[in-house]
Amino acid sequence: MERTLIKNLEEEKESLIKGHINKIRDTKYMIFIVLEDRSGFIQVSIEKEGNEELTKKIEGVLKDSIMEAKGVMKLSEYVKQGGKEFIPTDINILSYAEASPLEEGANLDTRLDYRWIDLKTEKNQLMLKIQSTLVEGMREYLYSEDFTEIHTPKLIGTASESGSEVFEVSYFDRKAYLAQSPQFYKQMAIVSGLERVFEVAPAFRAENSNTYRHATEYTSFDVEFAYINSYEDVMDLEENLIIAGLTKVKEKYEKEINEIFNTEVIIPTKPFPRIKLQDLYKELHDRYGYEIPTEDIGDMNAETEKLTSKFAVEKYGNEFIFITDYSKTKRPFYHMRDNDKPLGYDLIWRGTEITSGSQREHRYEELRKNAEEKGLTKDVEFYLEFFKSGCPPHGGFAIGVDRLTMLLLGLPSLKETMFVFRGPNRLNP
Amino acid sequence: MERTLIKNLEEEKESLIKGHINKIRDTKYMIFIVLEDRSGFIQVSIEKEGNEELTKKIEGVLKDSIMEAKGVMKLSEYVKQGGKEFIPTDINILSYAEASPLEEGANLDTRLDYRWIDLKTEKNQLMLKIQSTLVEGMREYLYSEDFTEIHTPKLIGTASESGSEVFEVSYFDRKAYLAQSPQFYKQMAIVSGLERVFEVAPAFRAENSNTYRHATEYTSFDVEFAYINSYEDVMDLEENLIIAGLTKVKEKYEKEINEIFNTEVIIPTKPFPRIKLQDLYKELHDRYGYEIPTEDIGDMNAETEKLTSKFAVEKYGNEFIFITDYSKTKRPFYHMRDNDKPLGYDLIWRGTEITSGSQREHRYEELRKNAEEKGLTKDVEFYLEFFKSGCPPHGGFAIGVDRLTMLLLGLPSLKETMFVFRGPNRLNP
Repeated sequence: MERTLIKNLEEEKESLIKGHINKIRDTKYMIFIVLEDRSGFIQVSIEKEGNEELTKKIEGVLKDSIMEAKGVMKLSEYVKQGGKEFIPTDINILSYAEASPLEEGANLDTRLDYRWIDLKTEKNQLMLKIQSTLVEGMREYLYSEDFTEIHTPKLIGTASESGSEVFEVSYFDRKAYLAQSPQFYKQMAIVSGLERVFEVAPAFRAENSNTYRHATEYTSFDVEFAYINSYEDVMDLEENLIIAGLTKVKEKYEKEINEIFNTEVIIPTKPFPRIKLQDLYKELHDRYGYEIPTEDIGDMNAETEKLTSKFAVEKYGNEFIFITDYSKTKRPFYHMRDNDKPLGYDLIWRGTEITSGSQREHRYEELRKNAEEKGLTKDVEFYLEFFKSGCPPHGGFAIGVDRLTMLLLGLPSLKETMFVFRGPNRLNP
Repeated sequence: MERTLIKNLEEEKESLIKGHINKIRDTKYMIFIVLEDRSGFIQVSIEKEGNEELTKKIEGVLKDSIMEAKGVMKLSEYVKQGGKEFIPTDINILSYAEASPLEEGANLDTRLDYRWIDLKTEKNQLMLKIQSTLVEGMREYLYSEDFTEIHTPKLIGTASESGSEVFEVSYFDRKAYLAQSPQFYKQMAIVSGLERVFEVAPAFRAENSNTYRHATEYTSFDVEFAYINSYEDVMDLEENLIIAGLTKVKEKYEKEINEIFNTEVIIPTKPFPRIKLQDLYKELHDRYGYEIPTEDIGDMNAETEKLTSKFAVEKYGNEFIFITDYSKTKRPFYHMRDNDKPLGYDLIWRGTEITSGSQREHRYEELRKNAEEKGLTKDVEFYLEFFKSGCPPHGGFAIGVDRLTMLLLGLPSLKETMFVFRGPNRLNP
């Protein structure tokens, strides 16, 4: 007999269901099991009297064990699980779970030690499905806009790009490094003639940071496209991309996000507000008495980001806000500049930066000059070569998929939104 | 003025086009440029007399430079490029290309040295777009079947799984390794309760192999799903997945694949033929006088794969063929076995293996025994733990995206189908 998904069960029709045991309760006369599959839950009710064989099969079976049951679904006013219960004529245990070593209320670190158990919760299952749907919606938008998905190398020959530390790899008789972003390669794609590219792939950062928003490995959603007129075009595209992703999630999971995560999916209106950093400083000062610390002038910090979101909602009624006109000393050399002003932006959502984007410098001489100014010439030599082969004006950005999920669902840390978290002190499981 | 894509140009309508110079020819009275953008080509014709300013702007400009031109498209019976030409009233060079260091007819290694130039050919541009479309079609199928896309860690704590060598990473004060496949983690997802998962991500192999079908980093399309009845279910799903990808490619690129790659996209019929290895040996012997070398008994080798495809087309009229019943000594410990017979398969297409798949062993005791038999217990300890928490019957497979593209387009080597190839002797660009 073919398996029937729980949500598709029909009343009184002989069916085979399979799933894992979410709850099991053994009473004097009855055994009650909540069986769960990817479509939902149902109560499986076994009356001990007259069902000695079934009762014996289920005795001592623990939560999380895998079970199949043949029988019929009946409507019942006594059952909480949607007024339905399943009366089995036969059951089989396909896998016996041991008692869970993960106790309820365990701290985050212990939960991460047992991530395969931690992920069994309804909340975490939903979180992973929502993340998948978010990326699906974003990809769909880019396909519809004629983008090509590329797969750039993560093993690279030189430690490069920015101040972030890179991981070193033993590569046969030499050293290689792990790419901290596909930046150079998505620009290479532009040089090669692909006008519009994106990539969803791991990025690696050897930073010894232990905060709620850092990881040594994370999933980066990278976009790069050519023939832009300015970085305004880059912001326009990113707005559409984010709206497409959020809309897809809202269509599919609005109710669950309200109920399980106790938060709302708010589809932002276009255009997102855009403000220059200096004007933002002034607003934050005038409204909240906030002074940016000297060492952060020309840039944002965690506190500024939080206040900026407060400001964006209060003034513009939008959860998203673009900040432009950062100091060039705070931005990578490949951002195009107009009289020393980098033509780039950060995007802030719900108190946290989710993106850096910019128009890129596509002119070889300017690019070399900017790299030299940052003391990077040797490491980026191979990259500079690309630009001798003709490169259109272009721009792009990167979004951290895990960070986006964290903010979407109101979760406290990246550690909660990654399938398996990686940090300076965590390489397991 | 907004840019118009070349394919959207309307006769006699003032337009702005942007693209790279594919060809440029400077004659006594005329300059002819073939300008290309992502939508197509057009000839830009400049009559020198009366257009001294335009002529000056274009003088000395080389192929691959980026240009924008304002003007009108006219129909002309003299022009080869689809009977259309563009008569500019103004042009601007947005980026000057230097003379290409990559000569026509350069060998593959030199071409890879200058991959950003090598990728500019019509063939390579198309190849990358087709690969993107192939993966798009495969993902769409899995979404429609209720699969969740996951992102598993590439940095792992123990060197694991199979005989393949892994790369070692300096991870702060300890060692990490690069995952050679997401196998353990997609099974972890199954344990955690996600019934159907897939991942498209880099995989890393520290093998010192220099063949047409090996790379140290490649894109792996991994699928794993639960509540199967046997590995027949896994083969069934893989058939549908491959057909979905090929169909999407055929719909969009059939004509180009015929013309540019001189090959056909053949959508296979279901079910693909399935044959036991021993029966295959006999067929190859009876038909072609082929004897499998002693050291390969219980397995395939490159020559067997080629003959197998010949056989599949001759006997079944199908380019695809599943081979089952390999020897357990040749298969990973996590394949489920039935009386020592691994319940798995390889899939062969056009003379090359593209997939290994199987039902997995989901029972803790059996799995541990199989691992011990391969001498792997310590390295896989963390993985074995998963199976104490309840695991449904499940199976899955992995497909190399680059290898699939190679075979689809009839290309001679993986080096041609990867955006940037990585091998034992190649870390650049």
